[in-house]
Amino acid sequence: MADTIGKPANFHHTVPEGDERERLVCKDCGFIAYENPRVIAGAVVEHDGKILMCRRAIHPQMGKWTIPAGYLENGEAPHEGAAREAWEEAMARIEIRDLLAVYAVRHISQVHMMYRARLATPEFAPGVESLEVALFAWDEIPWNELAFPSVHWVLNHYREAEDRTDFAPFTNPA
Amino acid sequence: MADTIGKPANFHHTVPEGDERERLVCKDCGFIAYENPRVIAGAVVEHDGKILMCRRAIHPQMGKWTIPAGYLENGEAPHEGAAREAWEEAMARIEIRDLLAVYAVRHISQVHMMYRARLATPEFAPGVESLEVALFAWDEIPWNELAFPSVHWVLNHYREAEDRTDFAPFTNPA
Repeated sequence: MADTIGKPANFHHTVPEGDERERLVCKDCGFIAYENPRVIAGAVVEHDGKILMCRRAIHPQMGKWTIPAGYLENGEAPHEGAAREAWEEAMARIEIRDLLAVYAVRHISQVHMMYRARLATPEFAPGVESLEVALFAWDEIPWNELAFPSVHWVLNHYREAEDRTDFAPFTNPA
Repeated sequence: MADTIGKPANFHHTVPEGDERERLVCKDCGFIAYENPRVIAGAVVEHDGKILMCRRAIHPQMGKWTIPAGYLENGEAPHEGAAREAWEEAMARIEIRDLLAVYAVRHISQVHMMYRARLATPEFAPGVESLEVALFAWDEIPWNELAFPSVHWVLNHYREAEDRTDFAPFTNPA
């Protein structure tokens, strides 16, 4: 899940002709590498009333707990990305239910699309990006060791959605 | 709204060490330009029971009708991008209501996030990317001159949503 870090040596930020924003442009050939927000696809996965969580084996926030989630890849729909991440990070096959929340994390230009899901089969195990994977009852969730604010948000929104099946997705808390 | 076209001369597609997918990598410095799906943010904007539409002044589909929509920019939330596009393409100030639909257009790696909105003030005019902007009653919509399949989808989903205010966003038609 590495992100774009830095920029290649022969690129610089400049406003191309006819544009209004700075873009990353190659000084040699004029190629414009448009930078747009990236989609993070993830899922709150439930099994027997418990929630599947992963302890991160990678930076940032190594050792902290999160839900399966990561960058959407080209050619994927968001719910497909969420299912792939559950497989990669928790070796879990999941069944997507519905879109629980859409968060904008503006300062890092991310759009989080978080789904509700269930384990399709009761197996799971740490993928290469996880130290540990576990099911937690609500009161067992390691609230003080969550990796990101959005993990707090999505867990609370999951709780708030309860058994409703037709609702507008939650958005950033006020 | 230009998209990334081609690639810079000194980049090639290869699978970086520790990755499982081909990435666009600089042959000189090893920089990885991750390519991820882009978010298209747009809105079905209603005023007096009519829907605001734009006739495209740009390729692709120049001369065809669409709703205000375009690439989400860094630092924006999707609903903010939809409002900006309504301003840029239709010189319209809009008030976002709710998330109407999320479409995955896999073959071009786009995620469309379409909102319901209203004109905040009754003014509109063609922006630089539009030849013409107009309000259409349902039966006046130029169905045979719509720019993209997703415009059909979103208009029909808008109609299907009717006056409901708490519903799961629509997704790609079957």
